[in-house]
Amino acid sequence: MSAALHLAGPQDLGRATALVAAFHGERGIVLSDEARRGAIAPLLEGVAHGVFYLVGPALAPIGYVVVTFGWSVEFGGMDAIVDEIYVRPAVRGRGIASDVLAALPRALAGAGVKALHLEVERGDAAARRLYARAGFAARSEYMLMSRRL
Amino acid sequence: MSAALHLAGPQDLGRATALVAAFHGERGIVLSDEARRGAIAPLLEGVAHGVFYLVGPALAPIGYVVVTFGWSVEFGGMDAIVDEIYVRPAVRGRGIASDVLAALPRALAGAGVKALHLEVERGDAAARRLYARAGFAARSEYMLMSRRL
Repeated sequence: MSAALHLAGPQDLGRATALVAAFHGERGIVLSDEARRGAIAPLLEGVAHGVFYLVGPALAPIGYVVVTFGWSVEFGGMDAIVDEIYVRPAVRGRGIASDVLAALPRALAGAGVKALHLEVERGDAAARRLYARAGFAARSEYMLMSRRL
Repeated sequence: MSAALHLAGPQDLGRATALVAAFHGERGIVLSDEARRGAIAPLLEGVAHGVFYLVGPALAPIGYVVVTFGWSVEFGGMDAIVDEIYVRPAVRGRGIASDVLAALPRALAGAGVKALHLEVERGDAAARRLYARAGFAARSEYMLMSRRL
């Protein structure tokens, strides 16, 4: 099973939205279809704030990863966050997410990205192990706080 | 003491860099002067990934706040992170950081930002109270993991 990454474009909106809806359903994230498409479409149309990669065959993807770009003075420039990563249930347990996480730094370093971050549930030991194997170090003394505008 | 926000431009590079160096010195963040300027200058020159606000009088600022822009599928579009916030030691304890945090949502909502996040030390009760008063909810069940590229 190939974990090749394909940068998604406007022609992929249907496939991308279906995958995101599956992920959100699994995680209990409630979003209207309209809001979901509105959050995905700009990523396919080249907005500067992020990219949407389909995983596997572009016409029959087995997952996706959304990477968003930001900036960190401390890290010295552009950084990036793994916003969402999803592999279809039928093909889990084959190391696909690991392959995706291994491929991302190569794809991003060429764009000048200095650091890659992701958010993990503190109690999700399997996810923490996966990310640690991929070279991510826990910032366990910190946490995020959020406010909707 | 006014906590008015001024969007910094290229002419503010010297003032901005001096403030950031003071903050980094206080927090033990080690960065060469060249790397620091390289991380700040694009923010003053209009890069899409963030903005640098001087706090107080533009020619004699009493602090700064760096806000970086990203994207969140779950939040439905553009989001933002308070990357760094600093108030000069001589004027602390007067509510300036609170005023800055109150002003930011007004400044950012007009730009279409859906949510504002920040990272806090879990053990820093005073900072957590400050952010909670400003409307930020802790995502205490999550943490960030990071990898330099």
